[in-house]
Amino acid sequence: MAHEIDLKNYSVRTDMVVDTFDAEVENKGITHTSVNIGDILVEDVVVTKNGEKICGKKPGVYKTITFKDITDKDNYKKVEEVVINNLKNVLKSSGIKDRDTCLIIGLGNPKSTPDSLGPKAIDNVLVTRYLYDLGEVEEGYRNTASFIPNVTGVTGIETKDLINGIVKTVKPDFLIVIDALASSSIERVNKTIQITDAGILPGSGVGNSREALNKDTYKIPVIAIGVPTIVDALTICYDTFNYMKKKFSYNIDNVDSSKLKFVDSMHQNYLDTDRELTKEEEEKILGMVGTLDDEDFKSLLLEVLSPIDYNLMVTPKEIDFVIDKLGLLIGNSINKVLHNGYNPTN
Amino acid sequence: MAHEIDLKNYSVRTDMVVDTFDAEVENKGITHTSVNIGDILVEDVVVTKNGEKICGKKPGVYKTITFKDITDKDNYKKVEEVVINNLKNVLKSSGIKDRDTCLIIGLGNPKSTPDSLGPKAIDNVLVTRYLYDLGEVEEGYRNTASFIPNVTGVTGIETKDLINGIVKTVKPDFLIVIDALASSSIERVNKTIQITDAGILPGSGVGNSREALNKDTYKIPVIAIGVPTIVDALTICYDTFNYMKKKFSYNIDNVDSSKLKFVDSMHQNYLDTDRELTKEEEEKILGMVGTLDDEDFKSLLLEVLSPIDYNLMVTPKEIDFVIDKLGLLIGNSINKVLHNGYNPTN
Amino acid sequence: MAHEIDLKNYSVRTDMVVDTFDAEVENKGITHTSVNIGDILVEDVVVTKNGEKICGKKPGVYKTITFKDITDKDNYKKVEEVVINNLKNVLKSSGIKDRDTCLIIGLGNPKSTPDSLGPKAIDNVLVTRYLYDLGEVEEGYRNTASFIPNVTGVTGIETKDLINGIVKTVKPDFLIVIDALASSSIERVNKTIQITDAGILPGSGVGNSREALNKDTYKIPVIAIGVPTIVDALTICYDTFNYMKKKFSYNIDNVDSSKLKFVDSMHQNYLDTDRELTKEEEEKILGMVGTLDDEDFKSLLLEVLSPIDYNLMVTPKEIDFVIDKLGLLIGNSINKVLHNGYNPTN
Amino acid sequence: MAHEIDLKNYSVRTDMVVDTFDAEVENKGITHTSVNIGDILVEDVVVTKNGEKICGKKPGVYKTITFKDITDKDNYKKVEEVVINNLKNVLKSSGIKDRDTCLIIGLGNPKSTPDSLGPKAIDNVLVTRYLYDLGEVEEGYRNTASFIPNVTGVTGIETKDLINGIVKTVKPDFLIVIDALASSSIERVNKTIQITDAGILPGSGVGNSREALNKDTYKIPVIAIGVPTIVDALTICYDTFNYMKKKFSYNIDNVDSSKLKFVDSMHQNYLDTDRELTKEEEEKILGMVGTLDDEDFKSLLLEVLSPIDYNLMVTPKEIDFVIDKLGLLIGNSINKVLHNGYNPTN
Repeated sequence: MAHEIDLKNYSVRTDMVVDTFDAEVENKGITHTSVNIGDILVEDVVVTKNGEKICGKKPGVYKTITFKDITDKDNYKKVEEVVINNLKNVLKSSGIKDRDTCLIIGLGNPKSTPDSLGPKAIDNVLVTRYLYDLGEVEEGYRNTASFIPNVTGVTGIETKDLINGIVKTVKPDFLIVIDALASSSIERVNKTIQITDAGILPGSGVGNSREALNKDTYKIPVIAIGVPTIVDALTICYDTFNYMKKKFSYNIDNVDSSKLKFVDSMHQNYLDTDRELTKEEEEKILGMVGTLDDEDFKSLLLEVLSPIDYNLMVTPKEIDFVIDKLGLLIGNSINKVLHNGYNPTN
Repeated sequence: MAHEIDLKNYSVRTDMVVDTFDAEVENKGITHTSVNIGDILVEDVVVTKNGEKICGKKPGVYKTITFKDITDKDNYKKVEEVVINNLKNVLKSSGIKDRDTCLIIGLGNPKSTPDSLGPKAIDNVLVTRYLYDLGEVEEGYRNTASFIPNVTGVTGIETKDLINGIVKTVKPDFLIVIDALASSSIERVNKTIQITDAGILPGSGVGNSREALNKDTYKIPVIAIGVPTIVDALTICYDTFNYMKKKFSYNIDNVDSSKLKFVDSMHQNYLDTDRELTKEEEEKILGMVGTLDDEDFKSLLLEVLSPIDYNLMVTPKEIDFVIDKLGLLIGNSINKVLHNGYNPTN
Repeated sequence: MAHEIDLKNYSVRTDMVVDTFDAEVENKGITHTSVNIGDILVEDVVVTKNGEKICGKKPGVYKTITFKDITDKDNYKKVEEVVINNLKNVLKSSGIKDRDTCLIIGLGNPKSTPDSLGPKAIDNVLVTRYLYDLGEVEEGYRNTASFIPNVTGVTGIETKDLINGIVKTVKPDFLIVIDALASSSIERVNKTIQITDAGILPGSGVGNSREALNKDTYKIPVIAIGVPTIVDALTICYDTFNYMKKKFSYNIDNVDSSKLKFVDSMHQNYLDTDRELTKEEEEKILGMVGTLDDEDFKSLLLEVLSPIDYNLMVTPKEIDFVIDKLGLLIGNSINKVLHNGYNPTN
Repeated sequence: MAHEIDLKNYSVRTDMVVDTFDAEVENKGITHTSVNIGDILVEDVVVTKNGEKICGKKPGVYKTITFKDITDKDNYKKVEEVVINNLKNVLKSSGIKDRDTCLIIGLGNPKSTPDSLGPKAIDNVLVTRYLYDLGEVEEGYRNTASFIPNVTGVTGIETKDLINGIVKTVKPDFLIVIDALASSSIERVNKTIQITDAGILPGSGVGNSREALNKDTYKIPVIAIGVPTIVDALTICYDTFNYMKKKFSYNIDNVDSSKLKFVDSMHQNYLDTDRELTKEEEEKILGMVGTLDDEDFKSLLLEVLSPIDYNLMVTPKEIDFVIDKLGLLIGNSINKVLHNGYNPTN
């Protein structure tokens, strides 16, 4: 059946580099390390020039911070601390100095909630450039400016062109660019922050890839901060299908040994199992579809959802509250990293 | 494997009565008719007292209007006309008279975009009650008032209690209640308006069913207008799995006869086929899972998604723009139905 | 000329009781004391039953807190502390106990910035009533609920009726009502918070006085918190005219003695002078109008502005930023006073 | 007394050129004509190079449209028609051709209601530039783009610099710039639209004059559309004082002849009188202050209000509703003038 599936020209839409990593590519130009800080996971993926050919992502450091509910106040503070440390780290490794001037850009549409992360973060960002012009800046504050380019459908102008114009005007030493991303998995949506020195493709999260915003374009460091806020139906189904395999594998393992019926099949944490379904089990339980490799299965899902226009890009229903918190966290983290003297009491 | 699946106590969350209808229940207290107006589909489901026992939905008339993109101006006008006609019809069949006073209630959280349909509609609703008190109302305008109870998490007060208090104060002859609903299928999200005289369960769309708002509670007619704006991951996967069966069925039908490879598997409208997979095909293609009946398959999905907390309720990423249009359409439709004299030039 | 002026039926629109106080009325049922806390002034006016006849304001304690720029972070904290202490005080003197339940009501129109103080404060208020119903409340949290009745033009329902309905439903032990007020002087606008146990006239700030919300109406304590956010042209002119007299008085005093020209007439703080213009000076400098008493001069201004519809109610152009801070301050103060256990870390 | 008043360095803040016109300057480089269309007044002031020296305003055509309540639907439509005709006229006289490309700029702070006219208008403006790039534009639509530079306090970047960057990027054939202005009289606030080909001083409305946006700066036509939305206390007092003179003049005229007391001093339209107070009357009624010329009286008011920081810039309390309507009207008018093919049905 697989031969009927057209594989060409489709790659699942994602900006999450960490999910393009695969054990096989290790030592071929991509390295991956990870550390847990409480229940926050920080993953570092480094893509070299060589690695770019394999994963199709720009060379650079990609830090991926994965956390639980950000609307919880205690958790918020812990995540903020981790974001601050990792952002500091990326600035340092990019050779950015204490007095370098920064332009912070918030991509996305301020009037579309799941796409408003960039503008929301900018609302919380401290700017000092005009005070520098007036000679009124205290010690501990860097020269910063901010810009919200909005989206092309609203301004009529390509985002890239707009940013070019502003960069030429402001002449910053480096850029920080914030954007909402498309997720490569259910569990990352609104629960991951990616920080990278490799720049960004504006609008790639919503499927209209355009020219890149990165060091090659501007000849200055471009730090990108992104959060996946949307996911497509295909990814939801793909993930669920794989969880289903895991669940069956866990069931087989546990039922066979105990011969007992599950007391509470709604709460057992089946993801812990190391067991994988065998080829035979896959075929028995899920048929030919169950034996497809990842690429083929994704292509199948695309062929199912695409002709009837149901490959929706969706966002969780709590998006309004989560995006406010994320914008606050990212804005505050930028302030604390860029300005030593910044110490909000409120 | 199916015997391991716990079926009890789960029903997919939906307020869309039309999707609980099933050919088998016809003539057992539930009737279903439908008509196309251009590319707008209007379905009428009538549930009798007897029917209530079968489908678990309150007796009454449920009109379900399904349409394409509401952000298109021409389409918007066509849908509005259909909504107006159907709402008029429901008012008439409920015995509501021209001079009966109306309280219009917008349920949901104004600050949560996918849940803000009710409040948005209320923003567009014309109120005249205070003008009646002043004796300043022109011919052609009914006595109307509106209320946004917000949600319990914001007010601390049960929505039902709040509405009780207001109904006792305003003493309307009938209620119109507007709310965002949970969808029972991908294709209905933001593309269906349900109008019913059977009332509503406030908050049922977000899984916190509470006491009903209906004629039994208030002793006056309660007309409910709802749009499904959210859908859960389970429903997305369930629908996709069924589309997949249809797709394979179509493929078998067409490939076998023609022996030709598909030119464009991304655009073929495979839903037209009448062919269903045979049991053998289901098992071959999708294994044991492919042979599960609907109930069992939904229970399986729930067992997969629930323990790992991934049965997200989601909304399409364009929700901000769609909800504005839906709120405008519903508000305007109510104005035109309630007030003969209403004729906005802008 | 004064005989031509019609004095009847006009009183300058204000809800600021402190400005109706006058040295002459002391000991006739109205007492006034004041204290400075840093540069914050706290005035206490106590109106007895007897005093009501004189000033036309309901008997009770009126605490008036006057401060400088609330958008300054340090100042904000100082003002909040003073508001908390005074609100505690009023609750105590009203006999409200630690476990008494409270309904907090935010009057005004959420969509009209200068009238949105009540709704903004409510946005920051913590509600627990539904948690009490669930038995999930920690020690240190009182039973609280909140309500935004919006304005009659939006709901079609009299604010008073709406509140009556809710009070009957919620049955609180006492009410806190927050509203934007009309100011009796330029300098109070957005810079004064009035706290009283005497209740409030909803909408009096915008000139549509309605029935009172107070202890007489509900048989429970009604604490009102108000900030003057608007002022009319008449008051601006009246104040300016009186400042002008003060300025001339200061000038005469200083020029006469020194015979020197003023170096910087734009920055001299002329309000410090104790000198008043003599009747002769008033007539020489400002003519017959200069000799009018307060009542007559206000009536004159009204006769000038009213027929040509220029007695505008206005608000400072910074209103958006100030109202956000005021709403936050009042909401937080209420939380800290009502809940011992409330201690926001963010 | 007048000798004590420092006159230098103050000019009342206004961007309303029509109010700097004075009968004396006629034939010295400034001409003034006016026409009534229903109850809408359209004034044309033409300032020549010579005129610039007299009134301090840039040479060009200034069209000033004065109207009544814009929140009335019928009136709205009439005003829109007049604005469209006058804007067309200014474009034509500026030599702008049908296919010339346009960049529309909305100055001001989107988050400060009285300063948000520009951003609100932009929200209603149709942009086509990106469709031109795609070759997807129907006949009848000009190439347009829009930009909201926000304010320097938010971006850290001088508005002028930001616009320079965008103009260089977009390379339009002409600019339309929209801004909220400071009013030179009570009666103009929110009731006047000024259209000019002389450009604009961004931020002049709020007292921070910066570099001009005009033809000299960009070498392309710059059409400015402004509405006075704020007025300072000084202007309110100055206007009221002059209305007071008018009122007394009317009273003397009418009381003297009739010897009757006024029946309704609150509704008589005293502005109709042609009579002016004599010098003697001015002195008798208003003293020395009554005899000051305009300049001296304004300086006096400034000396009174400035040292105590009470020269507030204020806006009418209905600003939220009015600014929405004005933004809609200006946006729609621009669309209809720029695009022949534009014909909104909704």
